Amino acid sequence: MIKNNKLSFFLKVKKIDILTGHPWIIILNEKDCHHFGITAGYKLVLKWRNKETEVVVDTTTSLVKGGEVGMFSDILKKYHIQENELAEFSFSEKPNSLKAIHKKLLGETLTYEEIYSVIKDVVDYRLNDIDMAFFSAPLFNEKSLSKEEIYYLTKAFCETGEILKFGYPVADKHSVGGLPGNRVTPIIVSIVASYDVIIPKTSSRAITSAAGTADTFEALAPVGFSSDKIKEIVKKTNACLVWGGSLKLAPADDRFIKVFYQLGIEPYLKMAVSVMSKKIAMGVTHLVLDIPVGPTAKIFDSRQAKKIKTLFLYLSDKFGIKTKVLIDKAVGPIGRGIGVGPEARDVLRVLQQKPDRPTDLEKKSIWLAGNLLDLLGIFDKGAGQKMAKESLINGLAWKKMQEIILAQGGKVVDSEKIKLGKETFCIKSSKTGVIESIHNKNLVEVVRLLGSPEIKAAGVYLNKTVGEQIKRGEILFTLYAPSPERLSLALGAVKKLEIFRIV
Amino acid sequence: MIKNNKLSFFLKVKKIDILTGHPWIIILNEKDCHHFGITAGYKLVLKWRNKETEVVVDTTTSLVKGGEVGMFSDILKKYHIQENELAEFSFSEKPNSLKAIHKKLLGETLTYEEIYSVIKDVVDYRLNDIDMAFFSAPLFNEKSLSKEEIYYLTKAFCETGEILKFGYPVADKHSVGGLPGNRVTPIIVSIVASYDVIIPKTSSRAITSAAGTADTFEALAPVGFSSDKIKEIVKKTNACLVWGGSLKLAPADDRFIKVFYQLGIEPYLKMAVSVMSKKIAMGVTHLVLDIPVGPTAKIFDSRQAKKIKTLFLYLSDKFGIKTKVLIDKAVGPIGRGIGVGPEARDVLRVLQQKPDRPTDLEKKSIWLAGNLLDLLGIFDKGAGQKMAKESLINGLAWKKMQEIILAQGGKVVDSEKIKLGKETFCIKSSKTGVIESIHNKNLVEVVRLLGSPEIKAAGVYLNKTVGEQIKRGEILFTLYAPSPERLSLALGAVKKLEIFRIV
Repeated sequence: MIKNNKLSFFLKVKKIDILTGHPWIIILNEKDCHHFGITAGYKLVLKWRNKETEVVVDTTTSLVKGGEVGMFSDILKKYHIQENELAEFSFSEKPNSLKAIHKKLLGETLTYEEIYSVIKDVVDYRLNDIDMAFFSAPLFNEKSLSKEEIYYLTKAFCETGEILKFGYPVADKHSVGGLPGNRVTPIIVSIVASYDVIIPKTSSRAITSAAGTADTFEALAPVGFSSDKIKEIVKKTNACLVWGGSLKLAPADDRFIKVFYQLGIEPYLKMAVSVMSKKIAMGVTHLVLDIPVGPTAKIFDSRQAKKIKTLFLYLSDKFGIKTKVLIDKAVGPIGRGIGVGPEARDVLRVLQQKPDRPTDLEKKSIWLAGNLLDLLGIFDKGAGQKMAKESLINGLAWKKMQEIILAQGGKVVDSEKIKLGKETFCIKSSKTGVIESIHNKNLVEVVRLLGSPEIKAAGVYLNKTVGEQIKRGEILFTLYAPSPERLSLALGAVKKLEIFRIV
Repeated sequence: MIKNNKLSFFLKVKKIDILTGHPWIIILNEKDCHHFGITAGYKLVLKWRNKETEVVVDTTTSLVKGGEVGMFSDILKKYHIQENELAEFSFSEKPNSLKAIHKKLLGETLTYEEIYSVIKDVVDYRLNDIDMAFFSAPLFNEKSLSKEEIYYLTKAFCETGEILKFGYPVADKHSVGGLPGNRVTPIIVSIVASYDVIIPKTSSRAITSAAGTADTFEALAPVGFSSDKIKEIVKKTNACLVWGGSLKLAPADDRFIKVFYQLGIEPYLKMAVSVMSKKIAMGVTHLVLDIPVGPTAKIFDSRQAKKIKTLFLYLSDKFGIKTKVLIDKAVGPIGRGIGVGPEARDVLRVLQQKPDRPTDLEKKSIWLAGNLLDLLGIFDKGAGQKMAKESLINGLAWKKMQEIILAQGGKVVDSEKIKLGKETFCIKSSKTGVIESIHNKNLVEVVRLLGSPEIKAAGVYLNKTVGEQIKRGEILFTLYAPSPERLSLALGAVKKLEIFRIV
């Protein structure tokens, strides 16, 4: 052990071949722990090339020797630390931002400086998941935060990350999730970019849904790029379809997503903050926001949809973004495929104008793309939807999509070449009638149990959808699973949950 | 890998020599992970001899082979699992109690059944620290919970654990912390039990203080016992001084303590719930509650003290406990020692009636013990303090303390044999005057940096205390540290923080 000064110490790095999905872990020998007065669960600060991050101590009597520090694979990778290097540690002081968190929990109002201090410490890993959960709890209750605080939070999310510029205008479209399938984004991007509009689309991975747009597009091309690489892709194609998390746009958001994922619920205030901060960071000037409302969608009453609309328009106004909010009724999923692979196939079927393409997905894409074209004002007023449809029919959109796939390093494939899970099972209807509705949340539950979004080939294909006739014994939907265990798990849920309502 | 049924699977246990202070961790080989569709951070349920607990998956390519599960030392110990046994795992379903947490976060009122479901899932480790932080956040704001909800929470804390009976009456005393030192409990217990009153005292470890009573008493005797062993100790001596956490009284509390420890702040609602649930579980019938109020104590205004008083009396009434609440003014620490070792020495000096015993500590102990004796009504009305003093003077209290130490397996030592840290440093006064006040929170900060409560020998001795004269160059206080690093860290804080105010 080399002592640098009295407040910090150096330990030789030993790699421990463990990956965690959570805090940065280091392992110290119990003798060193005793020497420094440290116990398991203690927090230290790792100083590494001018960066600081909080690490949590596990202890051992044998895995590492005195003077060594065991570091798990993920932290080594994140900070580019090599085995046998010397890492510097110091005792952690409580970050000042905890005071702001406490103040908020007491029901007081925070200033911009206070909110910024919290978000900065989230980004720098000086606050941990538990601190973040405490800070996030008031976001569930709109009475707990002022409008200004929500604006400050959005601004802080944005300003603690990278801010990109692509020119003017920069178009974007966002759907407030909750509808399985609903993979309109890649189609809209292809249409809008086919008319030479800049539309650099970043998407998220699944939070409470079966698959996020980033998860789905990953079945067609890589989605994780640096901002320089994205600028290059956009310069070449006017568009991109990338995962926002691999950029440093509003980087706090990815940590908050993990925290809310625990609960399986995301409050709409938090959702608006994440969405808007990323739009601002991407330099968006024109935005169409789609809010599907339905009994089993994420937003299930129009009162709540209107609240969300008001909040988005407030934030758009604060940041100077021209926004159109569209609220539409949802009775079931959009498209036939649910889960990464099945959804990617749907998208390609629409763009390739296959005869068996899901018409509801095509229609909704045209509607949203048309509204965005109108908002941009590049065609005659009201001509947007007509122009959007034309782009699909004449193949311009599909051509644009191929350009994007290639620019992002993917391989253009036909829709029918998308791989689906080898363990399949067909669920047949026990009665004859018309499908009145599909229970989105229950359907998502089944698709997640099948392994989506981690397993790209897992998912469901809806052989029948809302409004269609079905006879007793006909196939309602098909499950695709990576393993018999997964299939069995999902079948257990299918037995318990009502998914199709047939009348 | 042996497959039991489709929903669960068995893996051979391999011990991994790592101790964590946080969630239960298991390590799976990446091949198995791929087979089951599991990634790092995934949650599984470990089924073990009719118990179920949530475990978090880390992954490895080398530490364990396919078909094996690496389990960290602490989980093996907790569940008495041996290496090479077969452990059963299944996929985790979200506990229903998350719905109750969500409801609370939306600002709604919970029923007893809902609150019970959350606390039961905390005790059974089906909810994790992040879920608990979300559930705990409303406890900071009294407007967020109804009186009934606080009662329900207390009841649920109590009813998810063991409930002990010792007879009637059962006396207890509790101090709402925040004053460094203030180690009156062992003295009061010795006095009250010396008059044949049953006083089975459970205490906590430090949350935001320099040392809890359980930490301090551990310098004299073991404090962790089963309930059967405690019954035995109480039968023998009428008393005990044990750590509540080693019992199964209100077991949820220990998990909540860890969560609040992260923030370094404990809301008073939570504090009242913990305290009362443990009193009820210990069958307490007569309780004296001490609330020190001062500018740098935990409770700093008398308005807040009165709120706490009202809440405690409400809960006492609900559960049929005779409670007297005493609010007293605090200008500085009580006693001369701060930290485990120095405080234990203070306690023994009072009980042994040494000439250099801290008189403020003695006085406060007599006051509280006297009030408790009065509440019990075993002497003439108002004679309590006189009788408490007599027990100290005639050595009955010290005799009782020796009985307790021996019954708990400790060794009776003289006050001057208590070990203190070998690295010492004396802080001298830079001016002449009278000590007006001592800043408790800053003092605690210094003592924690010295290593307390983990390091028993770490702490501070106040050579001068409030109200005393000091000359320039005289020693104000002495630091005791286990290592030069710790000493240096504390000295850094001493330079930055005002501790003594000399006028």
